Amino acid sequence: MDTRFSAAIHALILIAGADKPLTSQQIAASVGTNPSYIRRLTGLLKQAGILASRQGVGGFRLLAEPGELSLYRIYRAVEGVEGVHVFDLHQNPNDACIVGRHIRPVLTGVFREAEAQAEYALGHTTLADCMEKMRTEIDREEKGGEQPFSAEITKTAET
Amino acid sequence: MDTRFSAAIHALILIAGADKPLTSQQIAASVGTNPSYIRRLTGLLKQAGILASRQGVGGFRLLAEPGELSLYRIYRAVEGVEGVHVFDLHQNPNDACIVGRHIRPVLTGVFREAEAQAEYALGHTTLADCMEKMRTEIDREEKGGEQPFSAEITKTAET
Repeated sequence: MDTRFSAAIHALILIAGADKPLTSQQIAASVGTNPSYIRRLTGLLKQAGILASRQGVGGFRLLAEPGELSLYRIYRAVEGVEGVHVFDLHQNPNDACIVGRHIRPVLTGVFREAEAQAEYALGHTTLADCMEKMRTEIDREEKGGEQPFSAEITKTAET
Repeated sequence: MDTRFSAAIHALILIAGADKPLTSQQIAASVGTNPSYIRRLTGLLKQAGILASRQGVGGFRLLAEPGELSLYRIYRAVEGVEGVHVFDLHQNPNDACIVGRHIRPVLTGVFREAEAQAEYALGHTTLADCMEKMRTEIDREEKGGEQPFSAEITKTAET
């Protein structure tokens, strides 16, 4: 099971929402993994121009505006692929049969259309949308919380 | 690699386009697999009410109209799932952190939206659309072919 995409969004919500720089150790504690896994993810996000290391203070800072950082960009950065791949073609259609000979482009076309729709949805959902959904979840589940989102992230990550 | 969906569409194009009943052996020859794999697929398609066995003559017949048989229905039949699953959640977000505690519904929501778009695309593409695309491929690639699609499927499957 590949959960890099999911873990990367979690890490980016933390980084975008925290009011102090977070280390890979603090991020790993929240994501529920080890710091070296987080460093691999942040390395990929840095390569893609999404994150930078903070010089001197340590931790990471977001180079992209959360409202302009699409989940599709995050997906491509951490998965190292150009698109979402969902459906595999069978390997040995028989070229001696007219259907076997022409099935590949037909299936590639219809599968690609469906995958492109998923890409479109990810391309139109931003990190800011995820942060907004998280605020809604927090407001709904933890009524009366007076702490700002950012202060609580930093506080929890420190414990 | 799971290619049941891809192989099932291939088999259904053959069955819908042939002018004589095709056996699982003939279908397997075109799909490039063995007859028992095809029987497992056709068994799932029969359970879903998409195919029936032809009594007496052998082979299969389509119970659904190709123009009303969506790829999404075929997908659910052979994959045995209720929806397209693409993105996995990381397993151990930390409940002690406010982000870790609320990340699951946030990610489930955005992943589901993207998957639903892929489902929508498959739900609006029919077996008839695939057959039409195949005819276009054949016309483009094999100019001057006078044979009807169906006669050639049956002929090739017999050899």
